[in-house]
Amino acid sequence: MTNAPEINIPEVVAEVRAAFERYDRGLVENDVPVLNDSFWDSAQTLRYGVTENLYGYAEISGFRAARTPAQHQARARRLENTRITSFGRDFAVANTEYAILASGQRGRQSQTWARMPEGWKVVAAHVSLLGV
Amino acid sequence: MTNAPEINIPEVVAEVRAAFERYDRGLVENDVPVLNDSFWDSAQTLRYGVTENLYGYAEISGFRAARTPAQHQARARRLENTRITSFGRDFAVANTEYAILASGQRGRQSQTWARMPEGWKVVAAHVSLLGV
Repeated sequence: MTNAPEINIPEVVAEVRAAFERYDRGLVENDVPVLNDSFWDSAQTLRYGVTENLYGYAEISGFRAARTPAQHQARARRLENTRITSFGRDFAVANTEYAILASGQRGRQSQTWARMPEGWKVVAAHVSLLGV
Repeated sequence: MTNAPEINIPEVVAEVRAAFERYDRGLVENDVPVLNDSFWDSAQTLRYGVTENLYGYAEISGFRAARTPAQHQARARRLENTRITSFGRDFAVANTEYAILASGQRGRQSQTWARMPEGWKVVAAHVSLLGV
């Protein structure tokens, strides 16, 4: 019989929220080192983006490096219904809806975070526009 | 200093793969009890679907109950590039691409799984079509 993981230990949620917000500032500022540092440096990390499927840290960091400022600026967005839920002390999910300011298009951003020796890292991410 | 979680302990991956495959058979057969049983029964569970954002087990199970056989059949799909990665003994991510057989449209399905006293459960999920 397994014990249930303790859900939403306040200091764990606070740590993940800080990591989530740091990543979000990295998106706003297109701060590639912060974006890269937020992801687990592993071949097993993956990120499904709106228009691409990226496998492994190398593909993800290569994608960041290739984005132009115009591509970046076109995606300025407002977050809505952000939910962070932690499980025990070492795992969490962070999910949010967003609205793209320029177009009003609605999207969703999902991240699974794990505590690694080097800090909290995104081990899997999925970003998509809401279908109609 | 935190220890790194042990990645992909074989018996843990096997358990999650069995739960993932059971859920997938539930999708193929539109087996609503299996679909519901696969998700964590919590207000904090969420599922971003292709065209809807569902918050909490009640909204997710209500969505399953409302699907018609025609809606179900239209989404028959082939999985590709399925990746399951476990972290320690109690947490895992399962991600897969898929191709919808009827249309050829490509999608992605992400699940975060946690081991609960009642078994492995999806605590967050995100399904989307690949944008063009």
